[in-house]
Parts: sequence; structure tokens; C-alpha cells
Amino acid sequence: MSASAVTERVVREAMEVALALSAGVRGNTSPNPPVGAVILDAEGRRVGTGATQPPPGPHAEVVALREAGERARGGTAVVTLEPCSHHGRTPPCTQALLDAGVAAVRYAVADPHPAASGGAERLRAAGVDVAGGVLAEEVASGPLRAWLHRERTGRPHVTWKYAASLDGRVAAADGTSRWISGPTSRAEVHALRAAVDAIVVGTGTVLTDDPWLTVRTPDGELAPRQPLRVVVGTRGIPEGARVLDSTAETVRIASHDPDEVLALLSERGVVDVLLEGGPTLAGAFVAAGRVDRIIAYVAPTLLGAGPAALGPAGVSTITQAHHWRVEGATMCGEDVRISAVPVTGEGGD
Amino acid sequence: MSASAVTERVVREAMEVALALSAGVRGNTSPNPPVGAVILDAEGRRVGTGATQPPPGPHAEVVALREAGERARGGTAVVTLEPCSHHGRTPPCTQALLDAGVAAVRYAVADPHPAASGGAERLRAAGVDVAGGVLAEEVASGPLRAWLHRERTGRPHVTWKYAASLDGRVAAADGTSRWISGPTSRAEVHALRAAVDAIVVGTGTVLTDDPWLTVRTPDGELAPRQPLRVVVGTRGIPEGARVLDSTAETVRIASHDPDEVLALLSERGVVDVLLEGGPTLAGAFVAAGRVDRIIAYVAPTLLGAGPAALGPAGVSTITQAHHWRVEGATMCGEDVRISAVPVTGEGGD
Repeated sequence: MSASAVTERVVREAMEVALALSAGVRGNTSPNPPVGAVILDAEGRRVGTGATQPPPGPHAEVVALREAGERARGGTAVVTLEPCSHHGRTPPCTQALLDAGVAAVRYAVADPHPAASGGAERLRAAGVDVAGGVLAEEVASGPLRAWLHRERTGRPHVTWKYAASLDGRVAAADGTSRWISGPTSRAEVHALRAAVDAIVVGTGTVLTDDPWLTVRTPDGELAPRQPLRVVVGTRGIPEGARVLDSTAETVRIASHDPDEVLALLSERGVVDVLLEGGPTLAGAFVAAGRVDRIIAYVAPTLLGAGPAALGPAGVSTITQAHHWRVEGATMCGEDVRISAVPVTGEGGD
Repeated sequence: MSASAVTERVVREAMEVALALSAGVRGNTSPNPPVGAVILDAEGRRVGTGATQPPPGPHAEVVALREAGERARGGTAVVTLEPCSHHGRTPPCTQALLDAGVAAVRYAVADPHPAASGGAERLRAAGVDVAGGVLAEEVASGPLRAWLHRERTGRPHVTWKYAASLDGRVAAADGTSRWISGPTSRAEVHALRAAVDAIVVGTGTVLTDDPWLTVRTPDGELAPRQPLRVVVGTRGIPEGARVLDSTAETVRIASHDPDEVLALLSERGVVDVLLEGGPTLAGAFVAAGRVDRIIAYVAPTLLGAGPAALGPAGVSTITQAHHWRVEGATMCGEDVRISAVPVTGEGGD
């Protein structure tokens, strides 16, 4: 064995692969976290890769170890999350790593889960060389963002997505809104949907826009996995509403209270929520501090009339404004994509 | 004389200086264009620099030639605009260049003015080596933008500037709005004001916000030159309104018609206008196609109620939306600064 073959650079490159693997299974693993793993042999060669399989399938480490087989012995496991040490649906990954005889483990983010944590300690106690923090920020703000938020707060992570004109309107005066944002933004929204567990709208959006709320691939095909569709509110919706068709599961929640909605979704194993409006529901979530990220597609159009993206959110004077921090402002086709996170409050990450 | 000393690179670097010089006098030259000039001697050394002086002062070339004196003989004049060949308030610059004995002239943008154009031809006829197009795009979209627009359309160039929350509101439900945008954006607005000839608001803005509409330096001092303040509309404003104080000239125009307003301003020599709202006036200008550029400061705050940035602009259904093209979306302190130009229509550049 040449331990020196597994340099920091080799580990970092392996973690980049693990990160990409975990990103690829977002939306498919809840309530488990989307994790990626790479096994390096004693010479630093990649001999196994894996990502968390849909429950009750195996965790990422186990998938990668299976591929590596005997080549894992004396090697290094590179994982986006500290390996679990508890028996859940599957046996603990720490045991699998010890059984495989890996000499070292490198992870990105420590497991904050009370029952699972201690994985690093247990491995160290068995003589494994363990260290965390590799690409921690990228993993924590990326694929593990929603899961970590749920671990910390007990609530699903909520991304409020909307598309508005430059003057902040989501529809024209007569209610028409197709299309405010451009094709690049609309394609990106399908990618956003594909990575979440549930899409939430209010009855008002169903009555106004009659959306499908499905995920389509860039070819226009229905994606094999569809997130849960959630219609929130007490108003009735037509039996023929598109959101009630058979392409995906739909639940109705007769409440506008964000905490009630999130608690019900959490019970169903939902970790990552995409809130797609409309203004009334978004206002209720913002007022309650239950929006953890905003992704706004601002189209270079002007309407001058029509509904605003956000309805009443508990602000009556400027000093009560909700404050956010812009994470990024970039072009998305012809639109500007602004992502923001709360500056303070429980909703923040 | 070593003509080879004046390489393309030397000319380009001189034009960059001329561009910066012209940017420095924006707002001080109307109705003349803000032009910059650099004189290179026969060896390519910078021996004179100049920018357009406030009317009835000399043009940029004359300022630069005075500094260069005899060293201009056999040298090169680098100018952001094709030298004029007509007698206006000052004698033609072409004559001054010929009298100084320059061997070559390089300019960025051709003069579209019917009486002034022909400068290049006249110089060529006198044996001068003349070529245009150096940094033409930078100059045309930068310091000469407003002046070129006025030459082409006969109307002053209008930049509509506003600051709004992420949800598109310019004030909270109770009308309070200080401060929606951050300190960096507010400082930049003073720089925008410093570069224009006139700042236009509606009576509604005066009644609601009672702004000074003055230019302050980063130290908070009043700038030595203040643009014309213009209050548009038929409603009365209090005698004690800040906009009527003695720090700058103020004119009142009892009309909401953009073309009437712009014609009156044009008569006063105004070339570059900063439209600072409010929603009603901005809506009228947008509806009339009389906004040539938008600069929006989008603050990462949410209000959920309160007036929108843009009032009725002649759009009742989505297919009538006004379409723009984003020139840039960048951070400005904590805010996002979006600049846009019209996609089509007379208002476009």
C-alpha cells in the first residue's frame, strides 16, 4: 500500500465526482439525504462510485463498495456526508466500510442527525484514518442543503420560485401570463422540479392557470419520476383540473397555514419543497418566515398592471420589510435569475 | 517624423484616455456632445489632452491642441467623435487641426450631424491621414450615447431609473420608502444624476417623497454643477417643496405628455434625461415608447404590498407586453442593478 498516492488533490477530485453523483439523485432519496460516494484503491484509483438509492435501497457507500469489491481493501472512501453508524432501513455504513477494510474515510459534511452521528468516531475507534470538511461548503449549500435544513429545523426546506416581469408582475391585467419568462428559464424550472419532493401551489393558481405541475425532460417527455403535487387552500377546484390527472400523485391540504402544510408534508417524508405560488400563498409563507430560498426569474418585459408576485406578507411600513441576501444574479437566457436567502429569522440557512 | 511610432496600440490607448476624458464632462456640455481628445506627437507621446468645455467654451480638440502647441505638428489627433467642419459657437475643429499641422486623425464615432459631418473628408482633402472606428462601440454606448440618440431621433435620451423591492414595489403599504435600496445604489444614483442634463419627476413624487433631486458628492457635499430639476404634471405642489429650493434650477411643465415634455426640454438644450418616476409618469413614458434605457436597482427585500414601480403603460394582456433586452445584471452593494434597452420601437438605440 502506498498511502502517499491518495493526495489531497486526488481526494478533492474524487469528492467532486461524489458531489455530482449526489446531485444526480436529488429528489429521489427522501427522507434519506442524497449522498454520493467514491472508493479509491490504495493507489488512489477510482474503483467504485455510488449514490443513495431510493428507499428502501442501499446508501451511497454501500453501492460504491459493491462496485469496488476487494479493491476497497486498504483504500479510501470519499463521501459527501459523514457515514451513518445507526441501523435504519439499512445496516450502518460504518460497518460496511469496516467490513470492506478501507484504510481511510474522507467526508464533506458532518452528520447532524442525533442517531446517525458518531460515524466518524466509530470508524476512528476501529483504526480508520478519518477526516471531514472536503468541499463542505459546496455540498452543504448544494445537494445536502434541503436535508440539512430539515435536520436542523425539523421542517422541509422551501424554495419559492416565481417568474415576473421587470416591474414585478406575474400576469397582465387580464390574468394572462403565458409566457412571462423565456424558454431557458422555463426549462430550468423543470430541472428545479425534478430535484424536489413536492411542488406546492394554492387553489388560486389552479383556478387561474390550470397548471400540470409535472416535470418534463428537455425533449418534452414526462420525466420517469414526478414530485408530489400539493394543492393548498379551502376553495374547490374543478374535477377536470390538470393537476388532478394521473401523471403524478396529488394531495390536497385544506389549510393556508404554512406550518400546518409543512408538518403534513414532513409526515409524508417530504424534505425539499418547491413553492410555485401564487401571491397569496407566497405571502403567507414569507410572513411566517417559512421561505428558505427565493429563485426569481425576472423577465425583461414591462406590464404596468396585473397581479404582483407577492401578496400581503405582514409588512405595512418600510421598517418591517423582510430582508434577504442575494446569493446570485445571473442571466438565464434573456431573463435575470436572482436567488436569495433570508438574512435573519428561523427560515434562514 | 517616425510614423511607425504611432502604432494601433498607441492609438487605442490614447482613445481610452480620450474616452475617460469625455466621460468626465458628461452633463456639462449639452447641447454639445461630451468629447475627449488626445494629441500624440510624431513619436507617439501624449502631448495634449482635452475634453469639451461647457458652452460657449472650446471643443475637445482645441483644448488638447492648445496644450500640445508646436508639438502637435506631424502628430496624431485621437478624438472620440469625428471632428466638426462647421462654424457653430466655435470655429470648426478641422481648421484648428489643419492649422496645428497634425499628420493624422483617428476618431471613434462618425458625426451624424448634417452640418458637422464631412470633417473627415475635409481633413483628407487637405492631406491628413484619417480613419474612424477606434473603440467606436464603447464610445457610442458610453459617453456619446445620449447625444447620438438626440441626433438620430431629435429627442433627448431618457433613462428611467427606479429602486424597487424584489417583489417590484417602490414603497410599503403606508407609502414609506426610505430606504429601499442600499447605500451603494444610492451613491450610484448621485453619479447618474451628475452625468445628465435634467432630472424629471411627476408632481406625485414631489407630494409623496418631497425629494431634493440634487447631486451630492460621496462626501455628502452638493456637487458644483446641478442638473435641471423638472416637475411634470398639473397638480399643485407646496411652495416649501424641497425641489423648489435654491440649490438648483427647477422648471415646472404642466403636462403629462412625454413628447410635449421632451420637446420643451430639447428647446432648453437638454440632451440627457434621468426619469425618476413615479409609477404614473413612468407608465406614460413607457407607453409612449419614450424610455430609451432602464436602470433598476432591485433590493433584496420583500414588501408584499405597496405601489409598483410602473403604473399603467397601455398593456392589458400579455401579448401587448413591452419587450426589453437586458444589457447587464450585476451586484451593486447588496442590490441587483439591471440595465435594459428596448427590443424594438422608436425608443430603441
